[in-house]
Amino acid sequence: MTPPRFVTFSAGNRRGYGLVSGNGLIVLSTRYGSTFPTLREVIEAGALTRLADEAAGLPADISLDDIRYEIPIPAPEKIICVGVNFPDRNEEYKDGQVAPSNPSLFIRFPRSFTGHGQPLIRPPESAQLDYEGEIVIVIGKGGRRIPEATALDHVASLSLSNEGTIRDWVRHAKFNVTQGKNFDRTGSIGPWLVPFTDEAQLADIKLETRVNGEVRQQDRTSRMIFSFRKIINYVSTFTTLVPGDVIVTGTPTGAGARFDPPIWLKPGDIVEVEAQGIGTLINPVADEA
Amino acid sequence: MTPPRFVTFSAGNRRGYGLVSGNGLIVLSTRYGSTFPTLREVIEAGALTRLADEAAGLPADISLDDIRYEIPIPAPEKIICVGVNFPDRNEEYKDGQVAPSNPSLFIRFPRSFTGHGQPLIRPPESAQLDYEGEIVIVIGKGGRRIPEATALDHVASLSLSNEGTIRDWVRHAKFNVTQGKNFDRTGSIGPWLVPFTDEAQLADIKLETRVNGEVRQQDRTSRMIFSFRKIINYVSTFTTLVPGDVIVTGTPTGAGARFDPPIWLKPGDIVEVEAQGIGTLINPVADEA
Repeated sequence: MTPPRFVTFSAGNRRGYGLVSGNGLIVLSTRYGSTFPTLREVIEAGALTRLADEAAGLPADISLDDIRYEIPIPAPEKIICVGVNFPDRNEEYKDGQVAPSNPSLFIRFPRSFTGHGQPLIRPPESAQLDYEGEIVIVIGKGGRRIPEATALDHVASLSLSNEGTIRDWVRHAKFNVTQGKNFDRTGSIGPWLVPFTDEAQLADIKLETRVNGEVRQQDRTSRMIFSFRKIINYVSTFTTLVPGDVIVTGTPTGAGARFDPPIWLKPGDIVEVEAQGIGTLINPVADEA
Repeated sequence: MTPPRFVTFSAGNRRGYGLVSGNGLIVLSTRYGSTFPTLREVIEAGALTRLADEAAGLPADISLDDIRYEIPIPAPEKIICVGVNFPDRNEEYKDGQVAPSNPSLFIRFPRSFTGHGQPLIRPPESAQLDYEGEIVIVIGKGGRRIPEATALDHVASLSLSNEGTIRDWVRHAKFNVTQGKNFDRTGSIGPWLVPFTDEAQLADIKLETRVNGEVRQQDRTSRMIFSFRKIINYVSTFTTLVPGDVIVTGTPTGAGARFDPPIWLKPGDIVEVEAQGIGTLINPVADEA
């Protein structure tokens, strides 16, 4: 059975959120917007399932062809990304270091992402736009120092990310990947949020990235170095997680940088990130206008 | 002459902003809050100077003794920090690398900072809480790819930061300093915003950090490796700067980690960060409750 799929969208000057129904969208923001301005507030109230139940059977208000997909949580307090979280990724760095004992973390701004269907933007500063397919978890119940045992109780929903990267700007300075991970609209999140139900939904699902139909990354979440539980536990050790926080959980081996010679994304390419039970996030690539 | 000093504060359940006048505060949020909910919106409207002019001569509404200082921009879109930006800082890393050609950047969440007068919090996970005194610039006019020549036209105001760091968590993982820079309330910003007027206000001012009255860091902005102009130009190459964005511009040599043996902050210490023409940011240190 298809799970509920919550979309944040724009159409003309209008911006809102709704629920996918067939080829259309049941717009929820016109019905619930005064209580919940965005999906972040829906999640904060723990109301995803209630809204899905209440909307069941309503006719679609607008065709999916007439919306522009936006990132599902337009203004989360935090977007935290995990680096080097699948086997062989550590070896790819060829720096002789053993596997790390804690997850590498970096932060992206919302404006570094665009929605499903929108182009990933290659800026004039670099030819090295690269893809990274990842699974996204969105925090429902906040907390600090969340134990691994109860960590999944804090997950409200799932999504996908193409954690697009300007590779030569990742090591542009002495430390940190900040700039290579934060060029405007070089990544994407979406297409939608799927409510999180239980661990089986995440424990061993296939994650695959394709470029122009060719499989470039493929792995299973059961092989992650740091589990979803561990990531939530570790991140919440230093920062208080709040509802709507977005965690991008790491990419399998096979990004374009890992080929010899590297294969960078170029205008006209189509990148798809797919995970079982969540969906397929599709973005074309375009040069910055 | 003392420049206008804009404070974000809380008092009981009330939160607002105002202008320091003697030992009191002229509360502006009661007068302008419907138009400008926070100082971010005041800055976005370019209205700092107008509000200072209009408030001139008004009596104070509340004593400074009765407010709690909050970070001046409570929810900026971005807080971007520059690493390794004063002479001798690069050498301190003892990694044999030459001086970097681009600034190292990392990101902090607002909740990693507290206001003037509030304790910097040492978490139970570490004994290595360290200070870093820095000058803060707040963006007024947004932009992308801002030229160095006009970069200072984009600065609305100045402030100070103790960019407090949990040193052993800075290199907790393979890459990035994210976690050591983002423990809740380990740093501070404030005490206030001072409107930016002209380059002379920033070009060659003394920046000093004292712990229990002892000078630990002292340098001048004229010795920065990456100038304020260069930082704005570089950061805006990859991300669109917007009004209220906060840039923390780097610390002089002399953090506690650089002593042999290192000298970490401990409960009861008082840390002061002072810069000419901006003010003095003072925070005690406390263990997490």
